[in-house]
Amino acid sequence: MTQTLTGANLIAGEARAGAGGAFAAVDPMTGETLQPEYHHATKEDIEEACQLAGSAAGHMAAMTPDARADLLETIAEGLEAIKQDLVGRVMQETALPQARVEGELGRTCGQLRLFAEEVRAGHWQGVRIDHALPDREPLPRPDLRQRMVPLGPVAVFGASNFPLAFSVAGGDTASAFAAGCPVIAKAHPAHPGTSELVGRAIVKALAKCGLPHGCFALVHTDNDGAGALVENPRIKAVGFTGSRSGGLAIAARAAARPEPIPVYAEMSSINPVLLMPGALRERGAEIGTGLAGSTTMGAGQFCTNPGLVFAFGEDGYDAFRDAAAGAIKDAAPGTMLTGGISDAYASGIAALAEHKGVTELARGGTSDCGQPAALFETDLDTFAGDKALQAEVFGAVSLIVRCESIDRALPVLAGLEGQLTITLQMEDSDIETVRPLIPVLEQKAGRLLVNGFPTGVEVCHAMVHGGPFPATSDGRTTSVGSLAINRFLRPVCYQNFPEELLPEALRDDNPQGLYRRVNGEY
Amino acid sequence: MTQTLTGANLIAGEARAGAGGAFAAVDPMTGETLQPEYHHATKEDIEEACQLAGSAAGHMAAMTPDARADLLETIAEGLEAIKQDLVGRVMQETALPQARVEGELGRTCGQLRLFAEEVRAGHWQGVRIDHALPDREPLPRPDLRQRMVPLGPVAVFGASNFPLAFSVAGGDTASAFAAGCPVIAKAHPAHPGTSELVGRAIVKALAKCGLPHGCFALVHTDNDGAGALVENPRIKAVGFTGSRSGGLAIAARAAARPEPIPVYAEMSSINPVLLMPGALRERGAEIGTGLAGSTTMGAGQFCTNPGLVFAFGEDGYDAFRDAAAGAIKDAAPGTMLTGGISDAYASGIAALAEHKGVTELARGGTSDCGQPAALFETDLDTFAGDKALQAEVFGAVSLIVRCESIDRALPVLAGLEGQLTITLQMEDSDIETVRPLIPVLEQKAGRLLVNGFPTGVEVCHAMVHGGPFPATSDGRTTSVGSLAINRFLRPVCYQNFPEELLPEALRDDNPQGLYRRVNGEY
Repeated sequence: MTQTLTGANLIAGEARAGAGGAFAAVDPMTGETLQPEYHHATKEDIEEACQLAGSAAGHMAAMTPDARADLLETIAEGLEAIKQDLVGRVMQETALPQARVEGELGRTCGQLRLFAEEVRAGHWQGVRIDHALPDREPLPRPDLRQRMVPLGPVAVFGASNFPLAFSVAGGDTASAFAAGCPVIAKAHPAHPGTSELVGRAIVKALAKCGLPHGCFALVHTDNDGAGALVENPRIKAVGFTGSRSGGLAIAARAAARPEPIPVYAEMSSINPVLLMPGALRERGAEIGTGLAGSTTMGAGQFCTNPGLVFAFGEDGYDAFRDAAAGAIKDAAPGTMLTGGISDAYASGIAALAEHKGVTELARGGTSDCGQPAALFETDLDTFAGDKALQAEVFGAVSLIVRCESIDRALPVLAGLEGQLTITLQMEDSDIETVRPLIPVLEQKAGRLLVNGFPTGVEVCHAMVHGGPFPATSDGRTTSVGSLAINRFLRPVCYQNFPEELLPEALRDDNPQGLYRRVNGEY
Repeated sequence: MTQTLTGANLIAGEARAGAGGAFAAVDPMTGETLQPEYHHATKEDIEEACQLAGSAAGHMAAMTPDARADLLETIAEGLEAIKQDLVGRVMQETALPQARVEGELGRTCGQLRLFAEEVRAGHWQGVRIDHALPDREPLPRPDLRQRMVPLGPVAVFGASNFPLAFSVAGGDTASAFAAGCPVIAKAHPAHPGTSELVGRAIVKALAKCGLPHGCFALVHTDNDGAGALVENPRIKAVGFTGSRSGGLAIAARAAARPEPIPVYAEMSSINPVLLMPGALRERGAEIGTGLAGSTTMGAGQFCTNPGLVFAFGEDGYDAFRDAAAGAIKDAAPGTMLTGGISDAYASGIAALAEHKGVTELARGGTSDCGQPAALFETDLDTFAGDKALQAEVFGAVSLIVRCESIDRALPVLAGLEGQLTITLQMEDSDIETVRPLIPVLEQKAGRLLVNGFPTGVEVCHAMVHGGPFPATSDGRTTSVGSLAINRFLRPVCYQNFPEELLPEALRDDNPQGLYRRVNGEY
């Protein structure tokens, strides 16, 4: 390892040894403690980080699109420059395999570059211009021009299951920087070393770009410190990916502030997959194998893991079930991210196994440090009658609900909680059966898929990685894809401003070459 | 009066006599009770209205843009058809003068038509298409298409100060209908007759357009019933214009729901006006007269009333002050909307008059039912030292803060609460003085004006009638102008959908002729 970890928080561009409680990362493969020891930031540290972020907010808001894009690209380059150390440490801290970690690093850098491109394109500024109508009767219309401005400092809570793509320099940080907001990242305690390496790369990039230290800080902290961060008056928004209980606790604290702030928490989803009769009949076995692959990928530790399957129809069902059960049975044990996640998964599948109305179809291999994949089956009445069966079991498990009729299943689908995704496995012969379901499904999820599986979230312009509560705390947004920048922006209108004082994006000569809505027309 | 008022709630397309507490409107001019008596809806009534709205949501979401636009236009025509009765009843219930009420009716109908136009233009659908890349390495990209869909039923709380434009068929209702959301309007108790007339026009329009009854309901209710409405699981968003305490109470209830929902509450703003040295010097007296006109317009009962003035510079200050004080002294007494508002205003100006650090500069005429306009003056230290001086006094009063230096005022400006508007009175000679203030002001308000006054909110595309907390509960939005439709929408992504199942807006042949973002480009 050429990069030396110091166990420090990163505040004011410096490594600061925390004076709070000590902790260390654990190798999930061996249960061994990893060096170095980390110390929580004190409340004074957090206050200082927030003050600096508040002071830096004006600078970031005033940066040109090019300057912001440069920062994002410099961070990506910095991460690529430490690839070897970074991938090694991620693997140690998470037990994720090398190919996955390298892929995630590529995705993280790609995401930073997508936002760089997005900032330069400038559409996020949402420019609208209504020219003055001085001769209008009975009253003249003033000149009115609108653009989006950054909300201010954002607190980002890293996720355990994407130590790079949804953590310190992940999608929340990239989109907040793109919007022009300083970021205070709260490191996930399961990968403090990864967080430190990435945090240092951001600090370096800021220095290289000549930006104030307050644009970024990294803090290690417990729940108390996290609460202090969310409640700090300089923080204007929160990004979070993690558990439902964690997200709800943060949202409650943010709503109870003297000045409430938006919380974008991506929390909980069981990603229903609907197997339509034609698809079951024609591709039952293939779907079974595909489902098992999606369920077991990465030990099932994806927000979009397909935890729930509704099977409509008899023809092909056995082939589906046998293929899925066979693949699950053959699945290698998965070493999970943390002992806590592993224990919660073990409890979750134990509860399903003991449930009177639920049948265990298959269980995969186990090992000292690995949990087995699992597949269960129940019927519509049992599922509809027990809300607990809708709770997310985070890991490589799916519950199949056999449905005799779509009519009877429709109210159950309509009663589901909000989801990140809903998938339809269908053939042309299913189209008229599916058509009336679409309006119901649209109200339940942020992304609807046909003939794929929900794992795998493309980072692009049209992606929605979001959805109605409790999939997220704010279903009006996405945390993946270029639309994510909107979470950290708000509109401001400039009335009768002299050209000299107008922001560049709003000037008559349109120096940024933006697509603008002028008098209602693009 | 050709339209007979019945005192009923409007649920399921029918007049339903409420079985709850009784109340009646009061003529603010005379203090006399106006017929008929109204009864609060029962909790069962509210539950029924919400159930019907929930059932109608799918129908509204599926309506074509043309059909939604037709509804909005039919409502506008319906309001114009009852103009005489409507204007008469508004005047009785609010004491607002005829010209103002007629103007507000025109604005309300214009607003409905703007949203009709906006729905037809279709930009609100926010279409993004990323085509499949089947040959991409290492993984192919699926076809991904994004559009906005309605949130679902919206509860709209009418405002007292705009009995038409921000009430039953006001901006919240128009933008919610435009987005495809059913509306349950909670009538403001100060104008129940106005609410009934407008509500009946909406019910008629729904019938004419062949839409389900559940698309709209009007309920009269107390705080308990209002709470039940906000907490009903079928309600997916709330629009509110009114007091800070009222808005905060609703936001707290919405945040505490098992499924929290967005609340768009427009609450409290004192709309600072900054008088720059050049402007004071060159136009002191003119600005004084203009300010007094803006302060006293409509008895000061506007959300954008200029309640706070920062005066920078000595030259011209006396001319400004004398002109403003003279105009305030000559201002006719204003009959306020309700006894409660009138009493609160009287207390507010009494507190200012008794404040040790505040000097009363002028007080306008009074009458039996009318409150006087008032003008006060203080210095920067007094203002900075007493947070109470930032509280909104709703009515025709302004407080002038004399500032010796802009440098000393800057932290005070930066410490102001969020505002709907901030106005700059300036000349060319002030430009370099103003430039460094703009980033601070952008963080404090939704609209920045130069050389106008904040009263008068244009309904157009570039308007922002919103702003950071506590101006609104959600500073990411506006309640006036076409952007208001975004409040009631959320994105959905369709992955690998067959053409037959894609929503029209997302089809390859673009049958709605929309501006779409395809592979990142417009």
